[in-house]
Amino acid sequence: MSNIPQWSLEKFAAETFSSAPVPGGGGVAALAGSIGAALAGMVCSLTAGKKRYAKYEEDIRRITAKARSLMDELMAQIDRDAENFYPLSQCYGLPSNTEEEKQIKEEKMQAALKVAVSAPVEIVRLSYEAILLHEELAEKGSKLAVSDVGCGVLCLKAAMQCAWLNVMINLKSIHDPSFVEGIETELKPILAAGEKLADEIHTAVAAKLAY
Amino acid sequence: MSNIPQWSLEKFAAETFSSAPVPGGGGVAALAGSIGAALAGMVCSLTAGKKRYAKYEEDIRRITAKARSLMDELMAQIDRDAENFYPLSQCYGLPSNTEEEKQIKEEKMQAALKVAVSAPVEIVRLSYEAILLHEELAEKGSKLAVSDVGCGVLCLKAAMQCAWLNVMINLKSIHDPSFVEGIETELKPILAAGEKLADEIHTAVAAKLAY
Repeated sequence: MSNIPQWSLEKFAAETFSSAPVPGGGGVAALAGSIGAALAGMVCSLTAGKKRYAKYEEDIRRITAKARSLMDELMAQIDRDAENFYPLSQCYGLPSNTEEEKQIKEEKMQAALKVAVSAPVEIVRLSYEAILLHEELAEKGSKLAVSDVGCGVLCLKAAMQCAWLNVMINLKSIHDPSFVEGIETELKPILAAGEKLADEIHTAVAAKLAY
Repeated sequence: MSNIPQWSLEKFAAETFSSAPVPGGGGVAALAGSIGAALAGMVCSLTAGKKRYAKYEEDIRRITAKARSLMDELMAQIDRDAENFYPLSQCYGLPSNTEEEKQIKEEKMQAALKVAVSAPVEIVRLSYEAILLHEELAEKGSKLAVSDVGCGVLCLKAAMQCAWLNVMINLKSIHDPSFVEGIETELKPILAAGEKLADEIHTAVAAKLAY
């Protein structure tokens, strides 16, 4: 069992660079999302206890707790994505000489693809939740940390979009229309709303920083 | 002297979450950029030696070397950004009771701001160069790694935009019009071109993955 969150930044980059199957786009998406949630935590850390923001103290406490849990859950998706890819990688090596072998391989592939898609799906969901925290922090967080709100939504938008590319790769090969439709129906609106919200927040932050 | 690239992913996220001054948006931008360059390296690793792409062997070798140097240089900007922030953080504590103290503080602040802006400026430049590698890989890289090209440009676009927010914060306080104009004149076209190119590549990748 891997424990990629314990790897150094340098090792993570070097392993990504290599031809090793993981970490790939899914792990990168999870890391970007976790850092985006961490930036929401940073804004909370720089706001909590400040007189000027005392009226938001309760909100900041709630957002802090939620940011921490999203940071941890997104970080955990790095290993989950790596582990979920293993059964699929094993399928590629299965024999397919006879009709029976072909059918067995196809059935195992289909099952493995459904497993492989689950981490990227979760990364889209969790990253969207973290964007909602930044939306609230754009109003209630310390003005001194406004650029961190901007960086946060940029990381989370990239996380959602990377994860979605990895969802699509898998859906492309899954021959179960109701499974595919179920994921699309849930995720496409989340993705569209998350991209729009991240863009709005980023634009507002950039306008505040303009000189 | 810090050595943040040796931190674990978990520690980097936790320190970002905290109220510690670094890592902040600059370090996050550098990490996202380094991973985006690493994904260009991954595409090369999955292309090199494959018969189908033999005609690009020379190009892939060149892109591999460039991707590695950009990955390393962007990773190095994490520490550089942290170290460059230190003199600025010291300035905030300087006394400003008399006119003379005020003038000394202002002079030191101006010098420190020019130091602080240098890492984010470099991150914009390096990330743009890495986007150009992905542009080439979208044509010459293994089709099996097309989603990694997509994830790569998404990370690099976020890196550029995060770095630019951190450039703006500093430029806002620098009272040296020719210094500010010099940076703007160089970076604004790079930023615009990088965003456009990243969007085009991402759109093309998503179209290839559509099912």
